[in-house]
Amino acid sequence: MKEIRLNTELIYDGKILKLYKDSVKCPNGKTAAREIVKHNGGSAVLCIKDDKVLLISQYRYAYDEVIYEIPAGKLEVGEDPHTAALRELEEETGNKALKLEYLGKIYPSCGYTNEIIHLFLASDYVETQTSFDEDEFIEASYIPLKDVKKMILDGTITDAKTICAIGYYLLKN
Amino acid sequence: MKEIRLNTELIYDGKILKLYKDSVKCPNGKTAAREIVKHNGGSAVLCIKDDKVLLISQYRYAYDEVIYEIPAGKLEVGEDPHTAALRELEEETGNKALKLEYLGKIYPSCGYTNEIIHLFLASDYVETQTSFDEDEFIEASYIPLKDVKKMILDGTITDAKTICAIGYYLLKN
Repeated sequence: MKEIRLNTELIYDGKILKLYKDSVKCPNGKTAAREIVKHNGGSAVLCIKDDKVLLISQYRYAYDEVIYEIPAGKLEVGEDPHTAALRELEEETGNKALKLEYLGKIYPSCGYTNEIIHLFLASDYVETQTSFDEDEFIEASYIPLKDVKKMILDGTITDAKTICAIGYYLLKN
Repeated sequence: MKEIRLNTELIYDGKILKLYKDSVKCPNGKTAAREIVKHNGGSAVLCIKDDKVLLISQYRYAYDEVIYEIPAGKLEVGEDPHTAALRELEEETGNKALKLEYLGKIYPSCGYTNEIIHLFLASDYVETQTSFDEDEFIEASYIPLKDVKKMILDGTITDAKTICAIGYYLLKN
């Protein structure tokens, strides 16, 4: 079923992504084009303590909406996902995880990007200081798990990594 | 929290995506760059009958892997997500849904794409004929729900829309 790369062209080399246009040979011998967004990947952390989930709300330009998400961020080049998870959680919410469990990795949109998001569970943490990036504006809130479930079902929560993390949590518990 | 667009530049206008580089004014008055992949969105269908889940396995070039997914496909321009869900299910698996319930929409990677995937549940269907796109090579299998849950937890299933659809199903049932 594998496709063989015949040619690759770097269309754009940006700050958070690279875009490639490749041509591939399909299993039936025909040629097809593949537009691929290369992304360094990220880590995201589901914080649940006393049956309350830590969600952040953040304006996302791509959707022109304020979106509820679990804390997350991009991996630095060569950075270990566990380290990135600890760092982003602390930067975005001021929480330092005392225990961080790996839940799994997800592929957000496998048709055109190679991005991998690593999901973690923090069930114990202490509060420290936030330190946002200079173009990040984030509000954190602690929402009962039963309300988070309702917010998924009624369409208030739409972010895939957040829904996947809750899915993992429900499967494990 | 809103960001105001100051400038937009179309970097690439492709077959399945467009890439834009915008500059925006942040709430603190500073300017930031936003790299945005515009995508027409898609529909995906969770088929569950007799506690068995219909999964397809398909080689995905971006990851150089065969990936388990629920049947899905891109929306045509102006196409209704419900129509696209019915069409893709039939094309990829030969199943015609007799009942299609809307589960919700997900945002796969809200930092850089405007893609929306609409999730549906088909709990009753009949088998017809498959008709793949000429560059699609797909195998369908019916896997017990309890095994699908294990495949998520052990990392065999990584596709975000598939994990989200199972998450919705668990929350509803």
